[in-house]
Amino acid sequence: MSLSMHKISVPAFIRGFAVLSSLIDKAEAFAAEKKIDQAVLVNARLAPDMLPFAGQIQRASDTAKATIGRLTTIEIPKFPDEEQTLGELRERVAKTVAFLETVDQSALEGSETKEVTLSAGPLKVTLDGVEYILKFVLPNFYFHVTTAQNILRHNGVQVGKLDYLGPLS
Amino acid sequence: MSLSMHKISVPAFIRGFAVLSSLIDKAEAFAAEKKIDQAVLVNARLAPDMLPFAGQIQRASDTAKATIGRLTTIEIPKFPDEEQTLGELRERVAKTVAFLETVDQSALEGSETKEVTLSAGPLKVTLDGVEYILKFVLPNFYFHVTTAQNILRHNGVQVGKLDYLGPLS
Repeated sequence: MSLSMHKISVPAFIRGFAVLSSLIDKAEAFAAEKKIDQAVLVNARLAPDMLPFAGQIQRASDTAKATIGRLTTIEIPKFPDEEQTLGELRERVAKTVAFLETVDQSALEGSETKEVTLSAGPLKVTLDGVEYILKFVLPNFYFHVTTAQNILRHNGVQVGKLDYLGPLS
Repeated sequence: MSLSMHKISVPAFIRGFAVLSSLIDKAEAFAAEKKIDQAVLVNARLAPDMLPFAGQIQRASDTAKATIGRLTTIEIPKFPDEEQTLGELRERVAKTVAFLETVDQSALEGSETKEVTLSAGPLKVTLDGVEYILKFVLPNFYFHVTTAQNILRHNGVQVGKLDYLGPLS
C-alpha cells in the first residue's frame, strides 16, 4: 500500500464516520435504557463555548466534504445543519459517507501542490494540498470525532478506546 | 511538498507537541490567576475511566516514540510516567520533541511495507507501515491532543480552536 492524497484522507474519513455512527448507536441505546430524552445527548457539550454532540458530527461532515471541494473539481453536496435527533445525525453521517464513496482516487491526483486558502477569523493562510491535509484537515477531523466521543463518555455512555479506533483489520 | 512516511508523521507530532506545550502554559497561567493548585488540572479528567490531563500528554509522547520504534531501527528513549506538575509535563513534551528532531527523513524510508503487530487487550492485528500510521497512530495521537484540550476547556481554561490548530504558516 503506498501513499497518495486519497489514501491519507478519504479512507480515514470513512473510518471516522463509522466510529461516529457506532457512537450514535451507543448514545441511542443509552438514552433508551436510562429513559433520557435523546435531545440531552444531542445537545450535550463539554464547555459553554464548545459545540454540542450534534455540532461535532456536523463539522466532521463539513471538514470531509470541504477537503474534496478544495482539492478537486467535484461539486460537493450541501447538508444544512438541521439535525435534531440521533437518527437525523446518523443520516447525516450516512449521506457524507455515500458522497465520499463516489470520490475516486484519481480525482485527488496532482492535488499535492494545489493551493488552498483558509480564512476564518484571525486565521488567513495559503497552504499546498499536502500541508492542508496534514496540518489542518486531519487534526480538525479527529478533533471532532474525539470530542464527540468525549461528550458521550463525560455523560456516562460506555464507550472506550477500541470504539474510537474502530476495526483495524 | 510530497508525501512520505516521515512527512505524514514526525512533523505532525512536533506540531501537536507545540500545541500541548501551549496548553500547559495556559493551564499554568490559569492556575496562578485563580490560585488553584496545579495538581487539580494535572489530574483532571472527563470521565472516571479516562486518563487525566497528565496521562493524555504521556500517551501522546508514547504514541510518537513508539511510531519511530516500530518503523525504524532507532532505539527510542524511555520516559517513565512520573510527571506530577505542569513543569514536569512541559519537560516530557520537550524531551519527546528533542528525540523526534533527531529522526531523519531517511530513517523512515521503506517503512511503508514494514509489518507492525499491535496487541492490546482484545485487539491483535498486523498492519503495514502505511496503515499503522493512518489507522492507528494519527487517530490516537490526535485523540490525546484533543482530549488534553477538552479537559482544560471543561475546567474553564480559555483555549479555542486556533490554539488546537497551532500556527499554520
